[in-house]
Amino acid sequence: MPEKLILGVDLGGTKIATALATTQGEILARGYSPTPVKADPSAVISSIFATVEKTLSLGKIDLSRVLGIGVAAAGIIDSDNGKVAFSPNLPGWRDVPLRDAIEQRFGISTYLGNDANLAALGEWYFGVKKRVANLIYITVSTGIGGGIISDGKLYTGCRGAAGEIGHMTIDINGPKCNCGSTGCWETLASGIALTREAIRQIAQGTNTSIIALVGGDISKIDAKVIFEAAKQGDELAKGLISRLGYYLGVGLANIVNIFNPELILIGGGVAKMGDLLLQPAIKVVEERAFATSVASVEIKPALLGDDSGVLGAVAFVLNELTKESSSLKRE
Amino acid sequence: MPEKLILGVDLGGTKIATALATTQGEILARGYSPTPVKADPSAVISSIFATVEKTLSLGKIDLSRVLGIGVAAAGIIDSDNGKVAFSPNLPGWRDVPLRDAIEQRFGISTYLGNDANLAALGEWYFGVKKRVANLIYITVSTGIGGGIISDGKLYTGCRGAAGEIGHMTIDINGPKCNCGSTGCWETLASGIALTREAIRQIAQGTNTSIIALVGGDISKIDAKVIFEAAKQGDELAKGLISRLGYYLGVGLANIVNIFNPELILIGGGVAKMGDLLLQPAIKVVEERAFATSVASVEIKPALLGDDSGVLGAVAFVLNELTKESSSLKRE
Repeated sequence: MPEKLILGVDLGGTKIATALATTQGEILARGYSPTPVKADPSAVISSIFATVEKTLSLGKIDLSRVLGIGVAAAGIIDSDNGKVAFSPNLPGWRDVPLRDAIEQRFGISTYLGNDANLAALGEWYFGVKKRVANLIYITVSTGIGGGIISDGKLYTGCRGAAGEIGHMTIDINGPKCNCGSTGCWETLASGIALTREAIRQIAQGTNTSIIALVGGDISKIDAKVIFEAAKQGDELAKGLISRLGYYLGVGLANIVNIFNPELILIGGGVAKMGDLLLQPAIKVVEERAFATSVASVEIKPALLGDDSGVLGAVAFVLNELTKESSSLKRE
Repeated sequence: MPEKLILGVDLGGTKIATALATTQGEILARGYSPTPVKADPSAVISSIFATVEKTLSLGKIDLSRVLGIGVAAAGIIDSDNGKVAFSPNLPGWRDVPLRDAIEQRFGISTYLGNDANLAALGEWYFGVKKRVANLIYITVSTGIGGGIISDGKLYTGCRGAAGEIGHMTIDINGPKCNCGSTGCWETLASGIALTREAIRQIAQGTNTSIIALVGGDISKIDAKVIFEAAKQGDELAKGLISRLGYYLGVGLANIVNIFNPELILIGGGVAKMGDLLLQPAIKVVEERAFATSVASVEIKPALLGDDSGVLGAVAFVLNELTKESSSLKRE
């Protein structure tokens, strides 16, 4: 009998990524399409259908071999009812029944969750499950998202909205956030915060190789360019990343004090800066958090990289199927 | 056969409180003594022994009726090894094997936990267990402590140090905290924060009935006096409490975004101010936290009041005994 497979879908504001994977998380085929974010939800759902179909045909896989479909979506997700309640990255989406739409189209059990939450689950399930019970996953990219594994289980709160650690106020007098609050962690320690500060300092006349790297077009400055400049020794870029590390550390210290976790994994685009960013952040954690909790936590880069969404979705399906089968056994 | 009982001990920096309770949390006898905090740990432990003995003789209870002893202690507690690892309120305590000392003295199974964590468990166990799975308990007194009930279980992190939500930075440029960090929630929203701000404003010449209430002795100002003045209509006192409510709300909004809990219970001395404090705090949560999480959370005063420590300790014993008996059944 051919091995059973799981299909993972990662729905973000810019792209739809899919992966067909084994129950061990080995990816056999991938799909990709841009998210038609300006169209209405039905157009996005059609793109998901097409991307899933392409992935299956690429892998020459018959639908009957697919045990389940997992969907990781950005935003506030009502997993119980399979709906995208609200998403800052998918304008106009309100209570969209995405799970049922996919389930009906393919006739395969489908599970929907928040992308950062599922990434946390994926990191745990395919990574450290055997040795770690409490894990916090943080994704640092344009914004900051998070997921909580508590006692070997994904913690999602009472409406699936837990883990919005990027919207923890760390500077009450800090910048205004898109969420409506002020001084949220992500206004100071995300890719957007980095870019904003770079532009501010350049506007003040600070000399930097960043300007040449974007051919003089300041609107092209992003975390990647700043990282590139820092690697080339640019003083402004190095200072900006060290400042980012400082703010990252302040929020991490909060997480360490609140959760006393064994492990914090940092994923997302900005986290690709590695030690240049993480070392100053860890130093701040050591200075600010309780010694007992500092001594017991390991803070390091996440393992799944750009596959955190799709493999998180795959892990979610496996996790839910295990729950269902163990509750069947109990009955 | 006479009903089995549990003995709860609350060890704080100022007092040792004990309660002999039924498995339903009904208190049959109480004990009390001041904590000889300046003496060494062995003197404090002797005081605990004496207070426990007095409570048993008061209730005319034979030791054989006591199923277990629970101890709620302030500080970082290593529950697995029964040690007080460190406590800001018990100077000089480092890795004190408090559990074994009590267990050996009375020959009764003893369980040790952090006071705010156990208070959370007590509130849940004797209160809302049947309808709520995710609960955050916050104690606002001199400082701010907390406890997390996740999925019907006490979450203590990997070294028992979780729930230090009072040491979550909310104002990176805020006051220095005793913990060594800056702008911790408790530096802005606790009893100490309230008193400090009152003294600061009085020193600047603000007119207030608080001065008369403490007979001109500014060192006697505390949260209770300020609350009294506010009830009498004093403008400064009302302003101070509303400011406290604001900062309380900022931290609560963080908790709501991180945990998406069904219920937040607020206990501790300062929380006795009730609506005068909670209403402005809840307003801030509504302004700052995510709508989905705001809509699903209830924020209200804790139920156990001054008994949160002793009844939390009783609940901890019952909880641990249940775990032990169910793991025995599985074997």
